Amino acid sequence: MSKFLLIPDSFKGTMSSEEICSIMEKAIRQTYPDADIISIPVADGGEGSVDAFLRAMGGDRVTVTVKGPFFNDMEAFYGIIDNGQTAVIEMSACAGLPLVEDNPNPKITTTYGVGQLMEDAIQRGCKKIIMGLGGSCTNDAGAGAAASLGVVFTDKNGNSFVPVGGTLKDIEHIDTSKLLPSLKEIELIAMCDIDNPLFGEKGAAYIFAPQKGASPEVVKELDDGLKKLDQVLQKDLKLSVAEVKGAGSAGGMGCGMVAFFGASLQMGIETVLDTVKFDELLKDADYVLSGEGKIDTQSIRGKVVIGIAKRTKKANVPLIAIVGDIDEGIEEAYEKGVSGIFSINRVAVEYKDAKKRAKQDLFLTVDNLMRYMKVTVK
Amino acid sequence: MSKFLLIPDSFKGTMSSEEICSIMEKAIRQTYPDADIISIPVADGGEGSVDAFLRAMGGDRVTVTVKGPFFNDMEAFYGIIDNGQTAVIEMSACAGLPLVEDNPNPKITTTYGVGQLMEDAIQRGCKKIIMGLGGSCTNDAGAGAAASLGVVFTDKNGNSFVPVGGTLKDIEHIDTSKLLPSLKEIELIAMCDIDNPLFGEKGAAYIFAPQKGASPEVVKELDDGLKKLDQVLQKDLKLSVAEVKGAGSAGGMGCGMVAFFGASLQMGIETVLDTVKFDELLKDADYVLSGEGKIDTQSIRGKVVIGIAKRTKKANVPLIAIVGDIDEGIEEAYEKGVSGIFSINRVAVEYKDAKKRAKQDLFLTVDNLMRYMKVTVK
Repeated sequence: MSKFLLIPDSFKGTMSSEEICSIMEKAIRQTYPDADIISIPVADGGEGSVDAFLRAMGGDRVTVTVKGPFFNDMEAFYGIIDNGQTAVIEMSACAGLPLVEDNPNPKITTTYGVGQLMEDAIQRGCKKIIMGLGGSCTNDAGAGAAASLGVVFTDKNGNSFVPVGGTLKDIEHIDTSKLLPSLKEIELIAMCDIDNPLFGEKGAAYIFAPQKGASPEVVKELDDGLKKLDQVLQKDLKLSVAEVKGAGSAGGMGCGMVAFFGASLQMGIETVLDTVKFDELLKDADYVLSGEGKIDTQSIRGKVVIGIAKRTKKANVPLIAIVGDIDEGIEEAYEKGVSGIFSINRVAVEYKDAKKRAKQDLFLTVDNLMRYMKVTVK
Repeated sequence: MSKFLLIPDSFKGTMSSEEICSIMEKAIRQTYPDADIISIPVADGGEGSVDAFLRAMGGDRVTVTVKGPFFNDMEAFYGIIDNGQTAVIEMSACAGLPLVEDNPNPKITTTYGVGQLMEDAIQRGCKKIIMGLGGSCTNDAGAGAAASLGVVFTDKNGNSFVPVGGTLKDIEHIDTSKLLPSLKEIELIAMCDIDNPLFGEKGAAYIFAPQKGASPEVVKELDDGLKKLDQVLQKDLKLSVAEVKGAGSAGGMGCGMVAFFGASLQMGIETVLDTVKFDELLKDADYVLSGEGKIDTQSIRGKVVIGIAKRTKKANVPLIAIVGDIDEGIEEAYEKGVSGIFSINRVAVEYKDAKKRAKQDLFLTVDNLMRYMKVTVK
């Protein structure tokens, strides 16, 4: 009997990681009905990340009433895994773009509820928090979350307030002395797959605020606010995190996680692999199947498949990448540990048509590989 | 060191079998530089068949002056393989459609020269002749070839003549008593991949004469001629071959080969496999790579890949099919002995674009498989 680990990225716009796992498993069972198959849907930090961890590891889904993007009360959720030790939060649960669909406005939306979710997890005894940064509607650099956990922001008149994107520029002082004490004992990891800095041309406002509804004028205003926050962080907390890779993720939430809570920013796939104890699972695995919508030279710089390859290579377990398109110049992937790269394209058709048949093609591609494996691998 | 047999069909309109062999070999050598690689380009009976056999087996290319399609003198060729024992003739060498491009006319063209090529081979001591039927410009049912080798056709006035498509209807008697005697000792195999009968709706004239320049009226005339020939064959030679599968191939040449020379009609791939002694080659082979432009339910009814699969399955050697498109419903191919089917489509693009990148995609697809093989097969 063979042991397969399935850990595919989503095929963006076509299939979620979880769907891919199901299809792969079904295809494998055609040839190896008794195989030991472990599915690890890959969380990317955005919507669905909590469920991906729960699916991979088991655990509980907790619902809590917290503040939504507009300081409205709403029911949000997070996951508790690892025998109650670890909380997995996706910030989009209470600060996600779909929540403000009709009226996106990064000037006034808050991450306040995200801090409340963290607090709930800590109260329940979690010692570690994994925070998924992604899909946010905010640009408050995590100031809302920080405020909810005790950080005090004051303006030039000495009045305390909860900053949002449009009022970051009013922050004159930051006082972290009243931060929830138990946070100090918490290991905090923020999953973050981008490396944008806090502000500037490649910063949170310029790159991501337009898709959150910001006009060019608002983008500039938000960017100025992020700059101002950075100045105060340097002055009051002696912290310089604006240039940390990923500080600009999720409307500057990357910066806030580091500055206010001492989080480490980590590639999502590394967090997943560490959390599911992938290296342990690899010990008696025969094959790992991963994949992504398109493998290209970009993928080779640290995305899911290559993140996995580093570990399978060390463990000497073959890694099969099942992908949509295979771009040119990806030979380096083999050196990095990918054993074989197979496209699900079975007929020459354009993407719009390929997309419609993707699930079936994925199934048949994995089915073919299993049949081939059965014959060629003794 | 591994031994690979390469025996792909052409990808029609994209790559010849020989080109595919070269690309596959180059890709294999990237991973297995010292592999023992035997290339067997697949002859389909049409243009290029002689060279395919020569490439696969070595041998000599012989040139001879014979009659062309219009009874003109021309230089044609055939191959001698198997230490001088076997001749390989493609009838298109002196009766091929490209030879009459400007003026195709199946009413007046002849296979006379094909008989002359056979005679030359017999005079040189060949004991076996493989005749490739395909790509012809004629509709004379091989009467020209028969006449050149001694068969006498006479009309109602008792005058002998060499029938062509338009004069088959004038045949009243056929006398084979003066046929070249040494022909009796020759094993004659005609390669033929279609199963059309001699005449009628699915016969040589109705199905194939239009592409040789025949108008609907001419098609009818040619069909009547073929019927008449069949009547005389039944009457004078007591032969009924019109319904033999493939009798209608190459303007009725299939019928003539059987009726006048006692040839066996055989699927091209079977001829190739027998001739190259494929079963012998399989004995110490590790892998066979075949392929075709598209694998579909049609392929499974006896085309190249499945013809090979029958033998690799018996010999327990894995067979990898590298194809352009993979159609639906081809699972039966696995049961028939194909171990794995891999499309060269690496990106979702239409056929017109896929075609342009086919050579590179074929190379990379085989390269990937070899890299994968190296890791997974110990």
